[in-house]
Amino acid sequence: LDNPVNLYDFQTHARARLDPQVLAYLEGGALDEVTLHENEQAFLRKRLRPRVLRDVSTPDLTSTVLGRSIAVPVGIAPTAQHHLFHADAELAAARAAASAGIPFVGSTMSSISLEEIAQAGGLRWMQLYIQQDRVLTEKLVQRAVAAGYKALVVTVDTPVLGRRERDLRLGSPRQTYANLDDISAEGETLADAAKRLIDPRITWDDIDWLRSTTSLPFVLKGIMTGADASLAVEHGAAAVWVSNHGGRQLDRLPATIDMVAEVVDALAGRAEVYVDGGVRRGLDVAIGLALGARCVFLGRPILYALTCDGERGVAAALRIIEAELANAMALLGAPRVADLERSMVV
Amino acid sequence: LDNPVNLYDFQTHARARLDPQVLAYLEGGALDEVTLHENEQAFLRKRLRPRVLRDVSTPDLTSTVLGRSIAVPVGIAPTAQHHLFHADAELAAARAAASAGIPFVGSTMSSISLEEIAQAGGLRWMQLYIQQDRVLTEKLVQRAVAAGYKALVVTVDTPVLGRRERDLRLGSPRQTYANLDDISAEGETLADAAKRLIDPRITWDDIDWLRSTTSLPFVLKGIMTGADASLAVEHGAAAVWVSNHGGRQLDRLPATIDMVAEVVDALAGRAEVYVDGGVRRGLDVAIGLALGARCVFLGRPILYALTCDGERGVAAALRIIEAELANAMALLGAPRVADLERSMVV
Amino acid sequence: LDNPVNLYDFQTHARARLDPQVLAYLEGGALDEVTLHENEQAFLRKRLRPRVLRDVSTPDLTSTVLGRSIAVPVGIAPTAQHHLFHADAELAAARAAASAGIPFVGSTMSSISLEEIAQAGGLRWMQLYIQQDRVLTEKLVQRAVAAGYKALVVTVDTPVLGRRERDLRLGSPRQTYANLDDISAEGETLADAAKRLIDPRITWDDIDWLRSTTSLPFVLKGIMTGADASLAVEHGAAAVWVSNHGGRQLDRLPATIDMVAEVVDALAGRAEVYVDGGVRRGLDVAIGLALGARCVFLGRPILYALTCDGERGVAAALRIIEAELANAMALLGAPRVADLERSMVV
Amino acid sequence: LDNPVNLYDFQTHARARLDPQVLAYLEGGALDEVTLHENEQAFLRKRLRPRVLRDVSTPDLTSTVLGRSIAVPVGIAPTAQHHLFHADAELAAARAAASAGIPFVGSTMSSISLEEIAQAGGLRWMQLYIQQDRVLTEKLVQRAVAAGYKALVVTVDTPVLGRRERDLRLGSPRQTYANLDDISAEGETLADAAKRLIDPRITWDDIDWLRSTTSLPFVLKGIMTGADASLAVEHGAAAVWVSNHGGRQLDRLPATIDMVAEVVDALAGRAEVYVDGGVRRGLDVAIGLALGARCVFLGRPILYALTCDGERGVAAALRIIEAELANAMALLGAPRVADLERSMVV
Repeated sequence: LDNPVNLYDFQTHARARLDPQVLAYLEGGALDEVTLHENEQAFLRKRLRPRVLRDVSTPDLTSTVLGRSIAVPVGIAPTAQHHLFHADAELAAARAAASAGIPFVGSTMSSISLEEIAQAGGLRWMQLYIQQDRVLTEKLVQRAVAAGYKALVVTVDTPVLGRRERDLRLGSPRQTYANLDDISAEGETLADAAKRLIDPRITWDDIDWLRSTTSLPFVLKGIMTGADASLAVEHGAAAVWVSNHGGRQLDRLPATIDMVAEVVDALAGRAEVYVDGGVRRGLDVAIGLALGARCVFLGRPILYALTCDGERGVAAALRIIEAELANAMALLGAPRVADLERSMVV
Repeated sequence: LDNPVNLYDFQTHARARLDPQVLAYLEGGALDEVTLHENEQAFLRKRLRPRVLRDVSTPDLTSTVLGRSIAVPVGIAPTAQHHLFHADAELAAARAAASAGIPFVGSTMSSISLEEIAQAGGLRWMQLYIQQDRVLTEKLVQRAVAAGYKALVVTVDTPVLGRRERDLRLGSPRQTYANLDDISAEGETLADAAKRLIDPRITWDDIDWLRSTTSLPFVLKGIMTGADASLAVEHGAAAVWVSNHGGRQLDRLPATIDMVAEVVDALAGRAEVYVDGGVRRGLDVAIGLALGARCVFLGRPILYALTCDGERGVAAALRIIEAELANAMALLGAPRVADLERSMVV
Repeated sequence: LDNPVNLYDFQTHARARLDPQVLAYLEGGALDEVTLHENEQAFLRKRLRPRVLRDVSTPDLTSTVLGRSIAVPVGIAPTAQHHLFHADAELAAARAAASAGIPFVGSTMSSISLEEIAQAGGLRWMQLYIQQDRVLTEKLVQRAVAAGYKALVVTVDTPVLGRRERDLRLGSPRQTYANLDDISAEGETLADAAKRLIDPRITWDDIDWLRSTTSLPFVLKGIMTGADASLAVEHGAAAVWVSNHGGRQLDRLPATIDMVAEVVDALAGRAEVYVDGGVRRGLDVAIGLALGARCVFLGRPILYALTCDGERGVAAALRIIEAELANAMALLGAPRVADLERSMVV
Repeated sequence: LDNPVNLYDFQTHARARLDPQVLAYLEGGALDEVTLHENEQAFLRKRLRPRVLRDVSTPDLTSTVLGRSIAVPVGIAPTAQHHLFHADAELAAARAAASAGIPFVGSTMSSISLEEIAQAGGLRWMQLYIQQDRVLTEKLVQRAVAAGYKALVVTVDTPVLGRRERDLRLGSPRQTYANLDDISAEGETLADAAKRLIDPRITWDDIDWLRSTTSLPFVLKGIMTGADASLAVEHGAAAVWVSNHGGRQLDRLPATIDMVAEVVDALAGRAEVYVDGGVRRGLDVAIGLALGARCVFLGRPILYALTCDGERGVAAALRIIEAELANAMALLGAPRVADLERSMVV
């Protein structure tokens, strides 16, 4: 892929290269895929109010998440099974994140182990399902701590798996789960794996249990209401991650960006807010930040870039996002992240 | 039809198999078919607010209608002339409903008699027009009672027949009316039959008359305003069925799902509320229930499934709807029907 | 044209038969034709609230306009140059109106004279421009009185001609003006004719002058605001006709149906209200009446029907409109015109 | 181009003639080009409230800008590098403006010098960037004064260049900068030139500095909020120009026409308001004036017309805009510019 101009270029290129089954697995959403498209469309519907004649000569994109410095308030969201997209698998994306100075969130369902991912260095968080087997869950937490992961990202929107019809038709690709000893080496389907990994019984009590097992700060990912955001912080969450699982769980959920303000207001500063879903532009990042998110995460775009050119591809995508964000901040009259205000978004 | 994934699969398959005249009769709506499409579109426009971390391990889809238990709050709406779609006619759909533990509503214009339908067992209601000949009307009620039907569903949105232009162009298929002795065996057109079956003079007084003839509870089907819903309960209706006759009567009526809340509020618990029109997903059912409907009925989708594979087809369609509903309830954080709240729908 | 089902059938048929220049003249609107399409679309966006269980066995479509009985509250709007569409020209449409018991409004720019049109009988009104030559204007009024026309319809939205780009490209068809002695027999273009017929200087004073010349009631056609409607009645108008000249004068005006309620409210019963623009269905007529119009006028649809089959074509179109209106009233639970209430339209 | 009917005709004709790279440079916008299209669409969404029976026989389109008479409240916005479109370059457009009696705004990045442009006569303003080199900036101001330019138009929405992806893909055409001695004769790309011309450090203090260097009135161009409009007047601006740089700077800004009322209200008469962006019709001009703009500027349409036929082309385009505006004012019942009221636009 020569001279990509924006993140859609990676998408176009990757679509032409991926196996149809893998592409369906990557691009599909639940049911009618209303939410899948709404995530992107909602960003395009936002209108901005720029301010002029502010010194924007020294754009400062640095920020912090959970007390740690990051170079750009952008992160790589947890996505499973990177080996489907590139031979270097998760290591490629993790290295690109580390080089860019942004957080990488490893998935429980990664195709290489969390310890291997840790070789990339950089700020890493560990995504977690509270599995039916709590002993295995706790063991995973301990491994994450040992490998230097700095926070847990607990997915709470998946008590059962959403109905992803592309996968129901084509089958999901064969998977490998390096983090999970109990899953056989030859792999199994996503649906089979999910039956072990996810637990429809989990409640806020299980969050309390998890909190009791570790001193790592934890983030609850998959919250879409102010009410649940408040509960999250009452149960000790350090941050709330607004997500609808990329439109892969329940369809007709609102776009994530449309729920950020409600969650930010409900938290009133008691915890950080993150968001993913439909982010394709540095301008989307600016909108998320202006609405009160502290960090904006990328999912599918990273996998498109990974498909195109491994670590180099992801690094190139991150550079574009950063350049677009810097440009947007300058043109909004907001040289620092803190200058992005909610009143700039209509 | 192998491995249907959703109800649209039945529709696609059936469209390829049905005679054009029958297909036009099945799919057509009144005038410009605005309401026909609006019924489906309004469901797709709804946005949901899911709650997380609730124990959804034991989904309970059971409910009751008019005091009788049902396995899933879904029913089969009355539709005429099933013999056009499958040789087993109404018996196929009625058997599938009985097996699924959900109510089946027989049509006055069924192609086999209500007594034959009764052989299917299960919870059955009888759809009724107050015919110009009140003696025949009363006789039909008595037959329904004798055959074990548990409620009357009185269609009130058809004082005259809507202008279904597909039928005006292609003609409606030849029909047989097993319930109606006075209609000749060789059949007549829908328009001809309608002239006998429907009566433009009926008013609330006729509802009072009907009430006086039977102790069966009755439902008024085809109500689209809170005002008429209130009148219905004042005239003894046990339930109000929000319907626009699948867009086949008057065009430019709102989508039925958009009128449910008004009707529920007007009734304030004095009678049950049902809805049909545009339901294609278990998620649509969840939305109807959340807005206050007690049961959500399927019309055309049943006929598509019937066309594909008779009783087996209808049973398969009902299993999909049930699976989709269970999935939606789990992902909304509503393990029981009563947990579906209006605040979950925007 | 065999068995037309709706008014679009006439349109489709006529489009295939008309000379491109004539078709452009008939179908075109001003500038970007936003208003042209908006007139129709606004009707399709309306949503209705039907009432049930009212005796609709004897639909009564009769009404009055300016004190005279009409069989259906529908009329034929003034349109110019019927000879372009059928050899029988205005006589065909006037005869069809007379047979149907509805008002026909003759155009100053008719291709046969107002006296010839009068041979059709029926209720006739005369459309008038206040021409630059007031003597000719007054003469036309006197001729209309002599020929039994019962009201004047003064067009007030044409101080200058709108920019109809289809005509600017193709040229307008050659015209004949039987009412206007001073225009040469061999005809001239619409733009040339307009220069004589319309006067950019006219004000409310000229309405007062017109009123002083005749005892005929007059209607002001082309009013789109409540403020001008009030002025109209203060200057003696018996009725206000909400019109945007079929989208042919100024583009980006609202749909006429969207201005009816404002005009009705401003008049508060002091004068009758009529509307034209985008009417294609008897259901559109019902909407206009429910919003407070006393009569709903048809323009282009009459010319499509005229093209198809002269008087017979227009009669057939009027029968369809009447049947659709009767059907809509029955299904709205409004057996009489007066039963159509504003609350039925959302 | 024979007999152009509207400004789209010039666009269509020019598109077929221009080199793809030049066309991309002309037509492109920033990022997803949402704002580019929104500028035009917002005008088409406006709905008008016309008044009737006002004497519109003597339309008066004259107005003033900054105290100087203009024949029509329309102007030519600053655009760079006219030599790409016609051999006569800026002189052609400036002559057409002078003949039409409307203001021409020369660009700092013009392909002929501001002194050469001055030969066209007429009312001229000079567009200015506050360059990194303040001495060069001041020298340009002095040259403008000497050459009879009557106001400065300071572009404030370009502290950095927007991401115009068409140019990023195709490269921007080679440019020549006759006003800028320090840029080499063989030209450089837009991006290179921009690095010298624009300064990301400029703030309101620099506006104060500019004000101290000259007695010319100045206009701030590129303001999109009432808050910045107020600051502009507090810092001495004689007028505020609502612009989003034709959608070329930051995407997802609102349409300019949608921000005019807010700016007008914030200024409350303390300074004049201008607007550009998406203007394609005299009717658009009328809308801008009704919302409170004192003059409405054309950008790309002038370049399309220039491409088609040089000065003659631009003159023809201006005649069409004037004719459309006069027609719109007559049909709105607003014979003078001051009769265009905000209440006419919804």
